[in-house]
Amino acid sequence: VARTVDLNCDLGEGLGPWGLGTDPALLEVVTSANVACGFHAGDPSIMGQVCAVAARRGVAVGAHVSYPDREGFGRRFMEMDPIDLADAVVDQIGALDAIAQTTGTRVTYVKPHGALYHAVIDQAAQAVAVATAVAAVGGDLTVVCAPGSFLANEARNRAVNVVHEAFVDRAYLPDGRLVPRSRGGSVVVSADEAARRAVQIVIHKGLHSIDGMWVPLDVQSLCVHSDTPNAPLIAHAVHAALVATGVRLAAFAPP
Amino acid sequence: VARTVDLNCDLGEGLGPWGLGTDPALLEVVTSANVACGFHAGDPSIMGQVCAVAARRGVAVGAHVSYPDREGFGRRFMEMDPIDLADAVVDQIGALDAIAQTTGTRVTYVKPHGALYHAVIDQAAQAVAVATAVAAVGGDLTVVCAPGSFLANEARNRAVNVVHEAFVDRAYLPDGRLVPRSRGGSVVVSADEAARRAVQIVIHKGLHSIDGMWVPLDVQSLCVHSDTPNAPLIAHAVHAALVATGVRLAAFAPP
Amino acid sequence: VARTVDLNCDLGEGLGPWGLGTDPALLEVVTSANVACGFHAGDPSIMGQVCAVAARRGVAVGAHVSYPDREGFGRRFMEMDPIDLADAVVDQIGALDAIAQTTGTRVTYVKPHGALYHAVIDQAAQAVAVATAVAAVGGDLTVVCAPGSFLANEARNRAVNVVHEAFVDRAYLPDGRLVPRSRGGSVVVSADEAARRAVQIVIHKGLHSIDGMWVPLDVQSLCVHSDTPNAPLIAHAVHAALVATGVRLAAFAPP
Amino acid sequence: VARTVDLNCDLGEGLGPWGLGTDPALLEVVTSANVACGFHAGDPSIMGQVCAVAARRGVAVGAHVSYPDREGFGRRFMEMDPIDLADAVVDQIGALDAIAQTTGTRVTYVKPHGALYHAVIDQAAQAVAVATAVAAVGGDLTVVCAPGSFLANEARNRAVNVVHEAFVDRAYLPDGRLVPRSRGGSVVVSADEAARRAVQIVIHKGLHSIDGMWVPLDVQSLCVHSDTPNAPLIAHAVHAALVATGVRLAAFAPP
Repeated sequence: VARTVDLNCDLGEGLGPWGLGTDPALLEVVTSANVACGFHAGDPSIMGQVCAVAARRGVAVGAHVSYPDREGFGRRFMEMDPIDLADAVVDQIGALDAIAQTTGTRVTYVKPHGALYHAVIDQAAQAVAVATAVAAVGGDLTVVCAPGSFLANEARNRAVNVVHEAFVDRAYLPDGRLVPRSRGGSVVVSADEAARRAVQIVIHKGLHSIDGMWVPLDVQSLCVHSDTPNAPLIAHAVHAALVATGVRLAAFAPP
Repeated sequence: VARTVDLNCDLGEGLGPWGLGTDPALLEVVTSANVACGFHAGDPSIMGQVCAVAARRGVAVGAHVSYPDREGFGRRFMEMDPIDLADAVVDQIGALDAIAQTTGTRVTYVKPHGALYHAVIDQAAQAVAVATAVAAVGGDLTVVCAPGSFLANEARNRAVNVVHEAFVDRAYLPDGRLVPRSRGGSVVVSADEAARRAVQIVIHKGLHSIDGMWVPLDVQSLCVHSDTPNAPLIAHAVHAALVATGVRLAAFAPP
Repeated sequence: VARTVDLNCDLGEGLGPWGLGTDPALLEVVTSANVACGFHAGDPSIMGQVCAVAARRGVAVGAHVSYPDREGFGRRFMEMDPIDLADAVVDQIGALDAIAQTTGTRVTYVKPHGALYHAVIDQAAQAVAVATAVAAVGGDLTVVCAPGSFLANEARNRAVNVVHEAFVDRAYLPDGRLVPRSRGGSVVVSADEAARRAVQIVIHKGLHSIDGMWVPLDVQSLCVHSDTPNAPLIAHAVHAALVATGVRLAAFAPP
Repeated sequence: VARTVDLNCDLGEGLGPWGLGTDPALLEVVTSANVACGFHAGDPSIMGQVCAVAARRGVAVGAHVSYPDREGFGRRFMEMDPIDLADAVVDQIGALDAIAQTTGTRVTYVKPHGALYHAVIDQAAQAVAVATAVAAVGGDLTVVCAPGSFLANEARNRAVNVVHEAFVDRAYLPDGRLVPRSRGGSVVVSADEAARRAVQIVIHKGLHSIDGMWVPLDVQSLCVHSDTPNAPLIAHAVHAALVATGVRLAAFAPP
């Protein structure tokens, strides 16, 4: 039986003169592009460039929504009022979707970025805010989050489709959380190793934690980080290994 | 024969702690709300508050698009690349429309703000950029601009509906342009006088310039500035005088 | 024996078109002006205007340093890296001091704003960052904070002078902390009542908590909030009552 | 007779996650670092990092002042009010100088960036604003600008020292202005060619224009652009060629 998985990546994380980096090479192999919406990175022009390439290649476009914090790249927790946060999420989805539509595609999913991604794992008020915002926008948007996130429950309670993801370039703790970046061995730098992990996650629905324990991971999407120098290498290796194993790569929410 | 005119006003021009000012009083009488989209003023939360009141009162919502310049309130000309400008306009329309839709209404028109409003009068490249953006977003959006603007032509060339407006609280030069604010008598501060001028523009399709010459003005909308202390007084006086004269007030692009 | 106290107030909290509000009326009676440095509010032009008036009136100028968060007005906690935070504090002090010097005065003290004010009460890393930054700038700067703040200790450890303040327009809990704004009776809106409390704090070195318990408060400065509509009224009443009681008002760190 | 020249470069042009790029390699050979002050690029943390390296290497630190326009990287002309512009320049100098002082150095000169650099060549009001700001800050600051700039006159009129610069990696028109980037041959990409031009400018006080005409250039500083991929290569080649020719490299305004 053929298996199918999505390969997603954070893209459009430039700003003005700080451009697209390795985005073109990554857009050759991913099936879903998490596009920054101007709050942690990205500006209308960069959003337009990424959407245009994604449209041409049939890559799904997702709104990579964030706290408003360009200097901190959305990586710093902010105690936002839930109503302000919900409005901010709607704003980002709407801005990206309008730009996407002018390039012939549209936003089909939403993924929280950085500190917001982590906040909606266990902070009820912010998880509710994001879920409410996505449900209010409507249009069959899917939410991407970590397995076990509060956001997943809140989204499902509002009839919003949820997709879980795993990271092919990060080590896991026995409890299924990521090994913090401050700890040795937290990041997988070898493209071959990342490719092996990708195959293992898809075929065996899990992988071994940094301590050797088996961690079950039932996910519909694999994430490759784009902020490592060899991100394109990793993405291409993961793509090739999955294809070689007979896994079909396809967006979970095609445009 | 009953005449009809629209009454528009710039709203949602707060930011974070700098709130809504006299917006609630103005929303009682205007028929179209030009809502700031976060580039010169406004944030997602304020956009949401204004849209919610507009939706409740049946006031049409327009995207008041601007250069990205909060400190200068969009009043400083910026030599933006036309492609960047077009993307920025799409971004603003999309963000506001998504927020408007969560409050039960939608964006039905676009009006450039401040320095951009003046730039699209005679700068071809920026006029083309705005017209292209509005046409690309589609959805029957109307463009509001000064009579004789390059933008009007460029919009019509792209099958975009155009509405011209006049200002009830500003004096005019014989050639139909506004008297610069730096010159005495440029601003009409009396609510009664503004009301008289509103009636004159609608009934007689023109008014007398600051030098006494007749200026023909064939417009479908009247604009009341919101940044004068007595803006609500002026708006209410204009509204009352028009109604008393038998003029019907109605949005040119109802939601 | 004559007592002396300082009266401080948050000023320059406009931005671009969102102007000075009641600042001129407040600058008539305060002895120290906490001037926003562009991170939560304020821009170079507003900073210059406030400094110019302060210089003319002999009011001391302090840097009201904040997280970089204009939309949230610096009222949202941000998990800033301590080194980034220290650099941001130095940046704000330097910018304001340069502007102050062009108007004939200089920055003599530093007071954290909003969420940062509260963070440095009990968060060691951020308290160390602010203290380190102030010590690094040097120049005999004084730090203003709540009694018992971690920041007070960290500043003293670095030979930085510390001044404690009390709020004349806020109710206190028995343990010396402020009654949260969400609770009834937290804000003192009566100018007369604020004036009575100011005198009590200076003469009796304490006041009664919201529950009637005596709260000792040994402070060198009294703070009047500027974001209430009747702030000028409160400030003038406090000033008059202190003078009538024979208390001398003087900046703790004159220019 | 030994000649001396300064070699300056734009540095610290990152922002948050968009880091230092090739700055470390450039700081090995330049004698003056034009450091972005947060308006077009740079944040307090990046400013601190560049100043620390400059301090260690004895490289002079200059404030690379700009319009407030990060998305446009300060490359878009802005019609700023001259008073706002002057305050903005003071703000940037003060912020960078405070940070520089915590790293053991200080700001010794000011160079306008991007669109502001070009504006002060022939726009009187903005040239006056920048000159006024630098004079108001005082402290023996030097201004760097293009030969023939209005800014040079305005600075000298206020007893501010002026240094002229030439670009080793740009072609010149016969009248001494730069060949616009839109025209072929405007940028010198060969490190060897840039090095030859540097030597020619210093030894012969001029170079041949793109049309072969001799352009006299009497400058005290040479600028290497940092935004080309091979900027470090060019800077090192220029440095080596000058040294080999017996030219001494030294900052015109050492810390």
